[in-house]
Amino acid sequence: MFESAELGHKIDKSSYDKEVPQLREDLLNAQFDLAEKGMFQVIILVGGVDGAGKGETVNLLNEWMDPRHIQVHAMGEMTDEEREHPAMWRFWRASPPKGKIGVFFGSWYTAPIVRRVLKQSSAAELNQHIEQIKHFERMLTNEGALVLKFWFHLSKEAQSKRLKTLEKDPKTRWRVTAQDWQRFKLYDRFRKISEHTLRDTSTAEASWFVVEGSDARYRNLTVGKTLLQALRDRLDHPVKPVARVAPLQPPIDHLDVLDKLDMTQKIAKKKFDAELEKYQGKLAILTRDPRFSKISVIAAFEGSDAGGKGGAIRRITGALDARHYLIIPVAAPTEEERAQPYLWRFWRNVPRIGQFTIFDRSWYGRVLVERVEKFCSEADWMRAYGEINDFEEQLAERGAVVVKFWLAITKEEQLRRFKEREKTGYKRFKITAEDWRNREKWDDYERAVCDMVDRTSTEIAPWTLVEANDKNFARIKILKTLCERIEDAIKKVK
Amino acid sequence: MFESAELGHKIDKSSYDKEVPQLREDLLNAQFDLAEKGMFQVIILVGGVDGAGKGETVNLLNEWMDPRHIQVHAMGEMTDEEREHPAMWRFWRASPPKGKIGVFFGSWYTAPIVRRVLKQSSAAELNQHIEQIKHFERMLTNEGALVLKFWFHLSKEAQSKRLKTLEKDPKTRWRVTAQDWQRFKLYDRFRKISEHTLRDTSTAEASWFVVEGSDARYRNLTVGKTLLQALRDRLDHPVKPVARVAPLQPPIDHLDVLDKLDMTQKIAKKKFDAELEKYQGKLAILTRDPRFSKISVIAAFEGSDAGGKGGAIRRITGALDARHYLIIPVAAPTEEERAQPYLWRFWRNVPRIGQFTIFDRSWYGRVLVERVEKFCSEADWMRAYGEINDFEEQLAERGAVVVKFWLAITKEEQLRRFKEREKTGYKRFKITAEDWRNREKWDDYERAVCDMVDRTSTEIAPWTLVEANDKNFARIKILKTLCERIEDAIKKVK
Repeated sequence: MFESAELGHKIDKSSYDKEVPQLREDLLNAQFDLAEKGMFQVIILVGGVDGAGKGETVNLLNEWMDPRHIQVHAMGEMTDEEREHPAMWRFWRASPPKGKIGVFFGSWYTAPIVRRVLKQSSAAELNQHIEQIKHFERMLTNEGALVLKFWFHLSKEAQSKRLKTLEKDPKTRWRVTAQDWQRFKLYDRFRKISEHTLRDTSTAEASWFVVEGSDARYRNLTVGKTLLQALRDRLDHPVKPVARVAPLQPPIDHLDVLDKLDMTQKIAKKKFDAELEKYQGKLAILTRDPRFSKISVIAAFEGSDAGGKGGAIRRITGALDARHYLIIPVAAPTEEERAQPYLWRFWRNVPRIGQFTIFDRSWYGRVLVERVEKFCSEADWMRAYGEINDFEEQLAERGAVVVKFWLAITKEEQLRRFKEREKTGYKRFKITAEDWRNREKWDDYERAVCDMVDRTSTEIAPWTLVEANDKNFARIKILKTLCERIEDAIKKVK
Repeated sequence: MFESAELGHKIDKSSYDKEVPQLREDLLNAQFDLAEKGMFQVIILVGGVDGAGKGETVNLLNEWMDPRHIQVHAMGEMTDEEREHPAMWRFWRASPPKGKIGVFFGSWYTAPIVRRVLKQSSAAELNQHIEQIKHFERMLTNEGALVLKFWFHLSKEAQSKRLKTLEKDPKTRWRVTAQDWQRFKLYDRFRKISEHTLRDTSTAEASWFVVEGSDARYRNLTVGKTLLQALRDRLDHPVKPVARVAPLQPPIDHLDVLDKLDMTQKIAKKKFDAELEKYQGKLAILTRDPRFSKISVIAAFEGSDAGGKGGAIRRITGALDARHYLIIPVAAPTEEERAQPYLWRFWRNVPRIGQFTIFDRSWYGRVLVERVEKFCSEADWMRAYGEINDFEEQLAERGAVVVKFWLAITKEEQLRRFKEREKTGYKRFKITAEDWRNREKWDDYERAVCDMVDRTSTEIAPWTLVEANDKNFARIKILKTLCERIEDAIKKVK
């Protein structure tokens, strides 16, 4: 991958001076169109060998373009807030909105490559990281982001020369430290691991551009032209690629996971009171266990309208200390959220370690209401299954217990509850025309629920289907499931 | 202040059971109205003596109301990101949007009181803190927030009894630590300092409610009823209080700070090139000085349309490392920003220590465009002067160098630049109908600028008026001013 970047590319001063003014004007115009139309965001990754011009390139982009619409993120050591979240959280929080350019100097590639070079991770772990990165970047590009990855390369000889030159000049001597020479010793290993990583992550949607770093003029023109071409191409041909989607088929015998639920299950009042006390007490003790501070709980509630989500959530929070939980009611996305990839609004609410977060409706909206109401394309919700699994995997990796409940009621029971709500004057339960409209699509929603369970109930984050015709039964099942999952998790805390 | 809270208030069980159901329903309805209308946010502070029911009250609010619209913030130790920002930043980032209730368990009162009790601060420092808090709370209430402050009190005897009772029961023994008894020894001092603080901060807009904490039923009913009354009052009588404003007068001789500028000042090309190199070089060295990591720079740019802000900013960033600066272009607020107090969108962009942040237009919009275009009331922009001074004082306290530039051009020069821009096909400089409309209000804007300078040019954050008819002159003056201010600041770094 690096052969072409060791040929000694050079651009002479006069050709450079001739080309730059037009290039800068074109870049500025492209950037202006980007900001004005706000159709997509641009994510530029800057990586490569030390001394190959990474920092200079970041400065150059700001100099050539309008720095007001570029956000540069130099990702160094993690802050303690970042360490208490999944590894990708710091990148999600720095994600540029549509219309802007985000430059990541030090990206999601840095840690996996460096750790492998220093033998802090195995080859298998690196490969697993690479898979995660590919999923993440595919999600970004599917969401419309333009992802450009630049790798600045120097041959071993050129890097050694570069360090020596810097050392000779009294004005730049300070820039070369003992650590630089230490790292130079690892050149071969770094090269090998980088090459492997780059090769594996050069996908059609997010390819690497390897740039020889020794000649500044060559480097600058290459980056400028690559960026301009990519921008213009996306701005002038805003055609959304049409993904081929294999249509989902309902089971040919029409038997699905919802059919198998025994909706007649009940718990009588007296038994309910005893069980409620038991499991709320258990939950209270579990969440106050010192080991709980090493995990977090993310509970997602989905269910039919009038399925009883609110009441079930209140039976959980009744056992918790209000200082350690947060409920996120999920409604229509805000303006800032609409300018970001779909999952961004959930990432921004991912809890720190030690917290208990309840989502009242969740990231599953995409494969439920957005699918049924056709708010997004079939390709969008089809890919969401995989993206959601990736998301939950990352949460679990950083110690989160992901618990997901579907509160199922029968169509008859829903009708009964709707009518009851219409009768009570009590404001919180007023029923809207939308509720009645959704009800007309009952079968479509059932189909969506079954597909969702089939495709996103994983070992890491299984779905719990809750027979909720009887509220008491539902509440106890939910509390019991939560207790079991948390108990399992804190047992594993070292 | 605490006399009434040591009388041994009690509510018997039967009166309590009779009152609670109606109170809960009323609270829920009020909360529903709040969420639906989204007219204001509710900020509840919970403070007081240990063991007086602070935690229990927070849990109660969540139990009685809909926890989906309550955000509880238990403010403990600061994270490292919080320590690298002004002290109030953590509260700004947790600020509830309109329609929601934010409960602060551990508030902006905690640190000032505790530090004074432990003799880590002087009486004068506490009083200065109190002044800042009053300004902050007045700003919140002026912005429409409902601020309710609850202080839970126990007499010395009652607290001692409470600790002993907890210790006796094997089930609660763990809750009493050596530290609790240590703190109990400071009871008298804590009481005295709290009383002083509460008395001084019980303002008409944000009064304290002192609640005796020994009887849970009394405590719960008191909090519930106080909250309900305050909510209903604001929901049912949404009249904005009309502030009396003394109208500003222009100087009777019509001589103002802009008149005194010598707009003919120029720098010729050759001298400009030399000076640019000199000051950009100086800025580069200053911002790379190790001491720079202990300060931050916040540069605000305001000026007439076509005054040359963009060009000036680019001459600064040309000297900086793109990894350490961020430009915030200020346009119309987003939906999430509109649901917060005016200054929130600037607080969310306050840089960490070691960063260089440039605001292209700033928090001064309120006393410039919003005043002239009547986007806010006279009372709103009149109070903004003081609020802005408070804001900048807090930035400076945490090491920020606040540098503010007004780029002044004459009306003739603006006309020349508008016409020039209309001639060039170059997109970035296209001129809109709005630019011409603003120009018609030239005198109103000049008046607003002069008032702004008079009222917000402080020793901490002085305004620099820049004679910008000659772009070269303006750019050098700005660079020079920045260098001087940063040099001064890093000299003081220990």
